[in-house]
Amino acid sequence: MNPSFPTNNDPPAIRNIKLTIEYDGTNFNGWQTQQARNLTNRQPSQKGQRTVQGEMEKALKKIFKKDLKLIGSGRTDSGVHALGQVANFQTRSIMPTTKIQSALNANLPDDIAITKTEDVPLNFHSQYSVQSKTYRYTILNRNSRCVQQRDFCLLYHHKLNLRAMKEEAKSLLGRQDFKSFTASDPAKCKKGIEGNTVRTIKRLTINKKGDFLTIDIEANGFLYKMVRNIVGTLLEVGIGKLPKGSIKQILLKKDRNTAGITAKPKGLMLLEVKY
Amino acid sequence: MNPSFPTNNDPPAIRNIKLTIEYDGTNFNGWQTQQARNLTNRQPSQKGQRTVQGEMEKALKKIFKKDLKLIGSGRTDSGVHALGQVANFQTRSIMPTTKIQSALNANLPDDIAITKTEDVPLNFHSQYSVQSKTYRYTILNRNSRCVQQRDFCLLYHHKLNLRAMKEEAKSLLGRQDFKSFTASDPAKCKKGIEGNTVRTIKRLTINKKGDFLTIDIEANGFLYKMVRNIVGTLLEVGIGKLPKGSIKQILLKKDRNTAGITAKPKGLMLLEVKY
Repeated sequence: MNPSFPTNNDPPAIRNIKLTIEYDGTNFNGWQTQQARNLTNRQPSQKGQRTVQGEMEKALKKIFKKDLKLIGSGRTDSGVHALGQVANFQTRSIMPTTKIQSALNANLPDDIAITKTEDVPLNFHSQYSVQSKTYRYTILNRNSRCVQQRDFCLLYHHKLNLRAMKEEAKSLLGRQDFKSFTASDPAKCKKGIEGNTVRTIKRLTINKKGDFLTIDIEANGFLYKMVRNIVGTLLEVGIGKLPKGSIKQILLKKDRNTAGITAKPKGLMLLEVKY
Repeated sequence: MNPSFPTNNDPPAIRNIKLTIEYDGTNFNGWQTQQARNLTNRQPSQKGQRTVQGEMEKALKKIFKKDLKLIGSGRTDSGVHALGQVANFQTRSIMPTTKIQSALNANLPDDIAITKTEDVPLNFHSQYSVQSKTYRYTILNRNSRCVQQRDFCLLYHHKLNLRAMKEEAKSLLGRQDFKSFTASDPAKCKKGIEGNTVRTIKRLTINKKGDFLTIDIEANGFLYKMVRNIVGTLLEVGIGKLPKGSIKQILLKKDRNTAGITAKPKGLMLLEVKY
């Protein structure tokens, strides 16, 4: 018999399944399961150890009856949301993608939803194949909270000079060392990895619609807490605490202490991952 | 001394304060406090007895140091939301309305917000002065849930014939007996009040934006569960379970059993109360 020809006794071929995932990060201790995170020095969260990855691996196990390794495009922190997080896993199951998606949605909690399920080439890797990621930070710029959106935006009372923010934001574009805008990543510290802090911001747009301000940032990659530190700094520009030219200076100093505060996680959303 | 002239010893005049209130009904056992509701036969909710009115009266007591009677425009059921609920209370406090609003918002939980605070004439009564109310019901018409909006819409998988729904909805307009679209109100039953079931629907619009369908209904008043029963019936029209002309027949029969099911509370929002 021709050994290159598949027979009924051959196991089904390995498939690589790419998932697009939406989640409300409010009640999650971030994306990553605790096992991986034990490498870090973080304190256990009050919310317990519920993670998006953990809930997804539980659902995968229910459906495929075995432990499957789920690779995410990257971590999101506790309280950070996603509209387009991406993850992939390999399986020999012949279940159609539409069935995988409905089975996952049926087995996942209400604060996670799979919005797309695709068969992709075996060399696709959710983390290593990333071309760019886009994050959106939402600020509600008024006095009174918006009840419906309260977990998805930062309530900010002070009047903001939008023109100044847009002008300063231009200095963040392009390939630069963003060391001033990152906190030391506890996972990398533990492993003794210094880490390259050069990234390329491809797009940064600030839009206002009613009282809602959105800051969208697309980059080839993001450092730990980079978006939230950029947003905190832009807010200080907006209230006039940081004068014109500040961001250029902050970038040059390569010192976290020169930039603004870290904006709260609840305003942050992983919008899209491009491959 | 002229007795008609106010002196320092006269107490400040009575004021009537109108509040516009936004709330996320998810974790409330409705608007009304349990004291008033004990007249009814309802079972205690699993969520406990947390009500919007109760939380508001607690906040008012903290601010004004006395029990104040808060009059709402009407009840909303457990799980029903509001963008523009209205309530009023009387006080002799001289606190400016802006201060009342910020003090209330500071003392209220995150799922309630006061969006407007006004001094109104003493004869204004949130319930009796109502000219019309507008409710919005939101349906997400697709297979997969929307995580962010999950508490604010009904997920509905079946394909809907929008044209048929709009056509049938016309029969609901105007002054009519809506007996077929109401459940017996337990509060009124207990009191032995039969109740007039004639109401006037001034406007009923059905709009689609992406996968979201909204049904707005403005009427001079609503019967118990009327909006949710109308929505349940319109959905049965949309899937073709109820043929053309059904709504006219249902109205004529004056029998709840002829109409469709009661749509879930989470899709319902009290949008506006007009005076």
